[in-house]
Amino acid sequence: MNAEIITVGTELLLGQIVDTNFAFISQRLAEAGMNIYYKTSVGDNEKRISETIKLALSRSDAVIITGGLGPTVDDVTRAALVKTFNLKLVLNENVLKHMQSFFDLRKIKMPQNNLSQALVPNGSTVIENKNGTAPGLIVPVDKRFIIILPGVPSEMKPMMTESVIPFLKEHFRSEGILKSRVLKVYGLGESRIDELINELFRFCTNPTIALLASHLEVKIRLTARAKDEKEADELLSKLELQLRDKLHENIFAVNEDTMEKAAAMLLTLKRLTLATAESCTGGLLSSRLTDVPGSSAYFLRGAVTYSNQAKIDTLAVKKISLDMYGAVSKQVAEEMAEGARKLAGSDIGLSVTGIAGPDGGTLEKPVGLVYIAISTDTEMLSKEFRFSGERIWIKERTAQSALDMLRRYLLQH
Amino acid sequence: MNAEIITVGTELLLGQIVDTNFAFISQRLAEAGMNIYYKTSVGDNEKRISETIKLALSRSDAVIITGGLGPTVDDVTRAALVKTFNLKLVLNENVLKHMQSFFDLRKIKMPQNNLSQALVPNGSTVIENKNGTAPGLIVPVDKRFIIILPGVPSEMKPMMTESVIPFLKEHFRSEGILKSRVLKVYGLGESRIDELINELFRFCTNPTIALLASHLEVKIRLTARAKDEKEADELLSKLELQLRDKLHENIFAVNEDTMEKAAAMLLTLKRLTLATAESCTGGLLSSRLTDVPGSSAYFLRGAVTYSNQAKIDTLAVKKISLDMYGAVSKQVAEEMAEGARKLAGSDIGLSVTGIAGPDGGTLEKPVGLVYIAISTDTEMLSKEFRFSGERIWIKERTAQSALDMLRRYLLQH
Repeated sequence: MNAEIITVGTELLLGQIVDTNFAFISQRLAEAGMNIYYKTSVGDNEKRISETIKLALSRSDAVIITGGLGPTVDDVTRAALVKTFNLKLVLNENVLKHMQSFFDLRKIKMPQNNLSQALVPNGSTVIENKNGTAPGLIVPVDKRFIIILPGVPSEMKPMMTESVIPFLKEHFRSEGILKSRVLKVYGLGESRIDELINELFRFCTNPTIALLASHLEVKIRLTARAKDEKEADELLSKLELQLRDKLHENIFAVNEDTMEKAAAMLLTLKRLTLATAESCTGGLLSSRLTDVPGSSAYFLRGAVTYSNQAKIDTLAVKKISLDMYGAVSKQVAEEMAEGARKLAGSDIGLSVTGIAGPDGGTLEKPVGLVYIAISTDTEMLSKEFRFSGERIWIKERTAQSALDMLRRYLLQH
Repeated sequence: MNAEIITVGTELLLGQIVDTNFAFISQRLAEAGMNIYYKTSVGDNEKRISETIKLALSRSDAVIITGGLGPTVDDVTRAALVKTFNLKLVLNENVLKHMQSFFDLRKIKMPQNNLSQALVPNGSTVIENKNGTAPGLIVPVDKRFIIILPGVPSEMKPMMTESVIPFLKEHFRSEGILKSRVLKVYGLGESRIDELINELFRFCTNPTIALLASHLEVKIRLTARAKDEKEADELLSKLELQLRDKLHENIFAVNEDTMEKAAAMLLTLKRLTLATAESCTGGLLSSRLTDVPGSSAYFLRGAVTYSNQAKIDTLAVKKISLDMYGAVSKQVAEEMAEGARKLAGSDIGLSVTGIAGPDGGTLEKPVGLVYIAISTDTEMLSKEFRFSGERIWIKERTAQSALDMLRRYLLQH
């Protein structure tokens, strides 16, 4: 069974609002095992809405339309639908009563133009709108269905979940469900991952595999088609194991989990405490660590030391090291990590120092040069990185790399 | 001139990511005075991409496509385009060189499958991708244009702004332009703003006014239609003055500017230096302050003091204050601000202490209770806040309020 989505609203085409309805409806349909091949956005224009609906209905079993249902003159979805399929409108008493009580409850006189909302196409099913006045409609056309819903997310969402999905499940007995799992990878580029998992990628059709790269991670999305949740989970877990066998500890999190959560879990598990010392990230590293609830159990303190004097005063970095090697150097990163650890009395010290730009770079030490160090009472690790991009990106990549270095250290110890 | 947008990616149709590229591209096109009547999303399927491109090109002068340009096998936009219009591919030496240097810089061997990205349709113009390997392309077809861009927002955005818009402006002289300006407000709710600017709101049709509230600000978007940029700017500036007359210093920024930038500008102007002390925000406050380029000129250091001991050690907070009033109290906030200022030798100390949750709240001191303090050598200001929402929201609102308190202090001094 194929479904298709149309979102109506000139404000969408002007880019004045982001179309979050689309993602919500897509998710619900996918979870119910329906295929979605197309989605179209169109402005508040009757002719173009009509053309879009006709095309959609020619290739899909169900067309879900949101937006353009309000009482104002620029809301024309219903008019387009009625004209396109030459539908007859009848007054629906239930809708009228519902609207009347909606306005009574708010002690407002019902505006005249709301009356049009009570006119519904003959033969259609009304979907009650608990959070507004515009009702939803299921309109059958030649054994296919056009479903219209209001564009306001808080009105549309419960109508979709409570009425549309059960209706579609009943009318299109789908063969099963779709379920996804996302594995997040750091430390390998998209192309390298592609090479490593190429065979699985090419021959695996259920679950399917998709890669999605951003500047902070590569997501591998596995999507299984199965008769039920249990079977889907089994398929996903089997493939996840195969992928872990190729990518090992480069996979740092699953689904909504984050790098800071991965590091936090390991710190908690090993009952270790942490102190941080940051230069170029300016507090982003400690902020991410403390995004995790309960972080006060392992995170003792953080120092944001932008100036050299701050590095000397609060981290006991040696003036001679700053003079000889510069603030952005392996040596200073290591002294910062050690200073943070000793002064806080923590098990681990984690430090970053670098040049976030846009100014401050030299030929020898360009913007994007970063050193990250980990200090414990028996070990000192440090690593050089060269990041590119604008200031915020360099900060974000540095924090991500520091958390990843901490995570990998904890995995091995 | 009509433009149309196609976004490619199965992850969009599964609802796994929200399509923010669409809104960005729409905005830029609208600002350049172009009409956008349709937008379609389609999965990584060559046949359906091809059909969508053909339909779009039949009704629009320019079709902008994002996504499906990566080096992996599920990225099929280029293949679809080439087959649909029977284009000949040629190796582009510049693209190859650019990719090679991209990998060299990162000291990574270029994977074999990246080579395909250097093959471009004969007669097309290459758009350089400064932040990734996949180039953009402008492909002329029968006096119309197909423009393909990568789907990664950070790669697509500069290509759109710096190359595509100037190209379209040159090739399609439009009759007029739309231009928007966003005023950002903090300290007043959406309904209160609505009341204050109600008359302007009702009677102003050019520019139009729209309100958009989030948990960190209310945006007021003014959109002017005019014959050129100059006329649009005049219309926008006139209305901005009227709005400032109603909302005063509650307007903290314009367009892409941020609260931290507003505070940074005032610090720079007044040549004052700052040190921060944070508990519940965990470094978010200093991270936001150092997001602004050149922040090392005024930001001396930050202390992230989660534990009581850290507050005593690094900020000279008195143990008796912690015992008597608790870590989340007006007294401790003030001592933190003063300690931060004195130990860093800065002009201003800014501190936050609070309970971000989800645990740690009591009846007397619930989750969301926050104190913010400002210390200078002549003054001490402090304020109690009660925020609601989840942990991350409370952190974000606390940091925003601290920056706002700093901004308002600097405006008055």
